[in-house]
Amino acid sequence: MLSINQYQEQFLIYLENQKINKEPKNLYQPIDYILQLGGKRMRPVLTLMSAEIFDADYKKALPAAMAVEVFHNFSLVHDDIMDDAPLRRGNSTVHEKWNINTGILSGDAMLILAYQYFEKYKPKTFLKLAKLFSKTALEVCEGQQYDVDFETRDDVTIPEYLKMIEYKTAVLVAAAMKMGAIVAETSKENSKLIYGFGLNLGLAFQLQDDYLDAFGNPETFGKQVGGDIIENKKTYLYLKAIEFSSAEERKQLLQLFSIQPDDNTNKISAAKQIFNATGATIATQKAIQDYTLKAFEILQKISIDNEKKGMLQSFGENLMGRKV
Amino acid sequence: MLSINQYQEQFLIYLENQKINKEPKNLYQPIDYILQLGGKRMRPVLTLMSAEIFDADYKKALPAAMAVEVFHNFSLVHDDIMDDAPLRRGNSTVHEKWNINTGILSGDAMLILAYQYFEKYKPKTFLKLAKLFSKTALEVCEGQQYDVDFETRDDVTIPEYLKMIEYKTAVLVAAAMKMGAIVAETSKENSKLIYGFGLNLGLAFQLQDDYLDAFGNPETFGKQVGGDIIENKKTYLYLKAIEFSSAEERKQLLQLFSIQPDDNTNKISAAKQIFNATGATIATQKAIQDYTLKAFEILQKISIDNEKKGMLQSFGENLMGRKV
Repeated sequence: MLSINQYQEQFLIYLENQKINKEPKNLYQPIDYILQLGGKRMRPVLTLMSAEIFDADYKKALPAAMAVEVFHNFSLVHDDIMDDAPLRRGNSTVHEKWNINTGILSGDAMLILAYQYFEKYKPKTFLKLAKLFSKTALEVCEGQQYDVDFETRDDVTIPEYLKMIEYKTAVLVAAAMKMGAIVAETSKENSKLIYGFGLNLGLAFQLQDDYLDAFGNPETFGKQVGGDIIENKKTYLYLKAIEFSSAEERKQLLQLFSIQPDDNTNKISAAKQIFNATGATIATQKAIQDYTLKAFEILQKISIDNEKKGMLQSFGENLMGRKV
Repeated sequence: MLSINQYQEQFLIYLENQKINKEPKNLYQPIDYILQLGGKRMRPVLTLMSAEIFDADYKKALPAAMAVEVFHNFSLVHDDIMDDAPLRRGNSTVHEKWNINTGILSGDAMLILAYQYFEKYKPKTFLKLAKLFSKTALEVCEGQQYDVDFETRDDVTIPEYLKMIEYKTAVLVAAAMKMGAIVAETSKENSKLIYGFGLNLGLAFQLQDDYLDAFGNPETFGKQVGGDIIENKKTYLYLKAIEFSSAEERKQLLQLFSIQPDDNTNKISAAKQIFNATGATIATQKAIQDYTLKAFEILQKISIDNEKKGMLQSFGENLMGRKV
């Protein structure tokens, strides 16, 4: 097996060799642009790793890994339009660099291109991959819709929030790993287990994102620390704080999450203080740990040798240990 | 075989039985809305007809027909955003009734839903249908991009224009028919021929649309007669008129297609006069006839009995004989 960095490298070589920039240029250039913008390529790397975990050559999984990455970038292009985001990975978003119509149409083409990568496989594998992909892609759309809906609701429950992040983020991580298993033609049971591993790790990862958004180190965290608080986002931290709050804390929190001051310094520190005082911070840390441990528990049940389990476990620990 | 009306009816019954309106409501309600808005259901009817032409029960082709219709409506939802169109089939467009973000996301979900309908078939058929679908869907995106690009170009050639309408409109008609052939498991040769029949009929249909937009009967033509002239659209009529024009006519035409007067009456009649004087009108009528005859010529080569050829031919004649 290769290292994470080597899988990344191999994936980037494959990506470079795709002739994406065809005619009409105004359709394909934005696709090429967003795919070249970088990112950690975590999802495609997971597909390659998973294929090798189940004794297939990672090369066999490259088209499936590419499908996952193209889909992920499709969702970024359309989400950035919906969020009116000017920047992605420090560069202009597609709809900013071109226009909204280009963002819509190039995104549509990417969703179709993703499916086309499965055509490299034999009919039975194609069917399995495309079915999993469609189910996952639809869940990602549903997750995005729940996220939009939650913005204007003040009665979102913890289970609803968990379902939203599961659909919006975790299912794609899980599907990326299961695709490796499908390509490797491992047992149904192993496929199911690796999906569960990915799903729980994806949930832990997203909850950690919520946590770091408030409590991360400004010097190493990629985004603006406190961004969710500034935007009045009802994250896991917020929902837990509401759940555990006294009448007074609750009133204060609702007030804080209804204002948009020019200077957010006081708002951020007040919100973080309530997160700590209510026990929401600890509850979030516990949830992250619970999902991570659940992932490792599922990992133990997979029929692969211990060395490979160790690799997946250290990947997980590495991912969750990011000190940012 | 059933009549066109009966295929329509059967398709509508199938459509009614789909449980589209799931949670989250804000994602699925717009999908349900656009699918219920009506329309002639020409594409799915062609899929059903084609399946029976090749000796399969039309019922077997219902999921494929549904995929075609869902995809067609996906493209309408996203195109209407791009064209900023307030109305579709006399009703509010999705992005007008809801908002642009809903239009984008519900459209995305429809594209995925279309693929899911192919899951009803066995792996080999699934692969064939999904492959044809992806190729077609990508061409439709490319056609839409060419259409957008042409708006700001003044050197569009006739072959470029024909490629644009082929991709934007004709390939989906052709693919709808080929899907019926795939479901019926007819020969490769027959599949190829029915695709050619659909493609040429689709081209004839779109050119006729260009023609009727200028010369149709205002009382029976669904859209505003002269709409393309008002919008300065470079249709086949316009491009042929430019090709055949004298220096004086050319100057006049370029001037006419650069203005946007409040009252378009004079602009429309002046443009139509040049279309007639240059021979563009006759050239367009001839192109429509040529593509229609080409379709019928291909039809003769298909290995089906003459009664069925007669049915397809009268369907084509009916479609092209619309006196509107």
